[in-house]
Amino acid sequence: MNLQRIADKLGIAVDRLQSLQDTKISESSWPEPQLLRFDKEISGIEAGTVIFRNGEIVWGYPSIRRPLMLEAAIKRHFIDSVAVEEKMNGHNVRITSIDGDVVALTRGGFVCPYSTEVATRLLPEDIFEEKPNLVLCAEMVGPENPYVSQDVYPTDSIDLYLFDVAQKNQRGTHGVHKTHEIAEDFGLKKTAFFGEFPRETAHKRIKEIVIKLGRQGREGVVLKDPENRVAPLKYTSSESNCNDLAIAFSHYNDYALDFFLSRAVREGFQSVEWQESVEERRERARRIGESILLPLTETIKNKQQGEIIMQRIKIRVKSLATARGFEYHLRRCGIRAIFDQPLPDDDGYTIGITKIIMSTNDKTEALLNGEMW
Amino acid sequence: MNLQRIADKLGIAVDRLQSLQDTKISESSWPEPQLLRFDKEISGIEAGTVIFRNGEIVWGYPSIRRPLMLEAAIKRHFIDSVAVEEKMNGHNVRITSIDGDVVALTRGGFVCPYSTEVATRLLPEDIFEEKPNLVLCAEMVGPENPYVSQDVYPTDSIDLYLFDVAQKNQRGTHGVHKTHEIAEDFGLKKTAFFGEFPRETAHKRIKEIVIKLGRQGREGVVLKDPENRVAPLKYTSSESNCNDLAIAFSHYNDYALDFFLSRAVREGFQSVEWQESVEERRERARRIGESILLPLTETIKNKQQGEIIMQRIKIRVKSLATARGFEYHLRRCGIRAIFDQPLPDDDGYTIGITKIIMSTNDKTEALLNGEMW
Repeated sequence: MNLQRIADKLGIAVDRLQSLQDTKISESSWPEPQLLRFDKEISGIEAGTVIFRNGEIVWGYPSIRRPLMLEAAIKRHFIDSVAVEEKMNGHNVRITSIDGDVVALTRGGFVCPYSTEVATRLLPEDIFEEKPNLVLCAEMVGPENPYVSQDVYPTDSIDLYLFDVAQKNQRGTHGVHKTHEIAEDFGLKKTAFFGEFPRETAHKRIKEIVIKLGRQGREGVVLKDPENRVAPLKYTSSESNCNDLAIAFSHYNDYALDFFLSRAVREGFQSVEWQESVEERRERARRIGESILLPLTETIKNKQQGEIIMQRIKIRVKSLATARGFEYHLRRCGIRAIFDQPLPDDDGYTIGITKIIMSTNDKTEALLNGEMW
Repeated sequence: MNLQRIADKLGIAVDRLQSLQDTKISESSWPEPQLLRFDKEISGIEAGTVIFRNGEIVWGYPSIRRPLMLEAAIKRHFIDSVAVEEKMNGHNVRITSIDGDVVALTRGGFVCPYSTEVATRLLPEDIFEEKPNLVLCAEMVGPENPYVSQDVYPTDSIDLYLFDVAQKNQRGTHGVHKTHEIAEDFGLKKTAFFGEFPRETAHKRIKEIVIKLGRQGREGVVLKDPENRVAPLKYTSSESNCNDLAIAFSHYNDYALDFFLSRAVREGFQSVEWQESVEERRERARRIGESILLPLTETIKNKQQGEIIMQRIKIRVKSLATARGFEYHLRRCGIRAIFDQPLPDDDGYTIGITKIIMSTNDKTEALLNGEMW
């Protein structure tokens, strides 16, 4: 690698890069291609930024901030109008081509073998031939998404929706217009676009959109400057907040604590901003309470009946090497998963996976046996 | 101070004590008497243990563990029978006499000037003359408790309930029988005693007691071995758990996050252990949800109307020096409080106090202005 050139592209001094390489940047030598990963944001370089062995760089996708008071935040943040897109509930990948091979990177900058196989299958073959520097920022969603399995989208397997595009070796993304153009040119699906609204009234339309999405069990919206001049914001439906609470409480000892607090606080601000009636607020409270208590008691009862607290997911792969690779990938991400025997399918294999929710499993067993909290 | 003698009493080596004194033990020189405080548990010595300048030691009150599954925990923990007492919701003090003066210590080992004045007023004068080494472990409760203001107990001011007794310079406490004896001998109130039940069936009676206490807005129970052979346990009502949630969420940015999780998880286990019907469980979920959302939206709305997020409390003191001392004490505990002008009362003063809930106040203001979470 030519360190000087890489440092120049990253916009940092070469000796700074050298010292980071010794300390803060992790190497990932598997699967091919080998790469260096920025685990965390360092020196202003986004977490998830990746330097491939051939010297090409893919920047991490910037994390999107969340307002709790929509109207105030929109007026504060946006310039004149607001483009509203769907925020889908899956996992975020950056897909590009390195030395002629399609590669799908996770948020953290790992090559995910499963996402790579899915991307290779779903993308048109010529896309990276025509645009060798293109980076597709896409959400992978569907019931066969092993990270976040959701069946509210129109797929019974796994699908890919473009939400932004970028270039290798260039910081920043290109925003709404360019994304729509690429999607059109290559026949890619893109996240639903709800329109562009004036800054002063956008919050009213967004409220309607979010309520409707919530009723369909969908997550929420991303708000973008149509000309890409300011960073996007995100905002979610009450159903999505409560769904997060439900997942968190069914695995209450495994999830970060601030997960709970943030979801509950979002609900409070949404209820105030939307000036809910006493009945609406009580209905929201009921939803929150049930999202907490019912999954929690289910988990406890399941454990009481001797079950293992786990999550069942399913993936479909063309090649068994992908499955083995994905097994290794989950392990290195600290997820304990047991893979079933692959079942031959149309032109590949279906594989059931059991994710063990270790900490909640063990803690619940201990508490049921009369141990103290 | 004779370090060797103190080290012997504490059961540690003198050079260990010397090194702790240089590092881990804090000195508190105000108010009189001067003392050394064990801020945290060190070398097996309970947090809150205090060494007075005259060499006398008062051990910290051991923290009481909490089962989530009552029946299993009782069978696991107790030997034959279980004494059940009320757990009152106030603040826990250890009261003793040092060099002839009554001193009330907080959980952390500070002398609290207000609690000391209250204890001096409520205790019979001769108690420490007759029993100079006695340490009274008591709960101070009532609306004029500035730490935890509660109006469910039979006092419109502040009162003191004995729940255990200990000796200066001796580790451990004396338990139920001795506590009842001292209360009787000196005419002290003690925490309600609900009886002694066989280990095998105690959980059924405790459930009834806890449900009844909950309906009265009271906290729960402490379970003790009648012969003081094993450590006590505590268990609380759903109303108390939800009340904690309500307080936590009305000051959502000031309270420790695990506060939220632990209360919710308690509710889950109680609901499973008590084999609630679908309706009972939904009712509990509603209670949890409302405990979270309603105080939270109140806080946001109050701030929206320009109010400062704060808590109003009231104390009554005989001497203005006590009030000034208490003001200083709150400050050293990191609590920001503004004291009103004292109002002369029967034989002393009533003083309103405003506790500012800083973090929630500032965070809510920022979020209302459209800042991001």
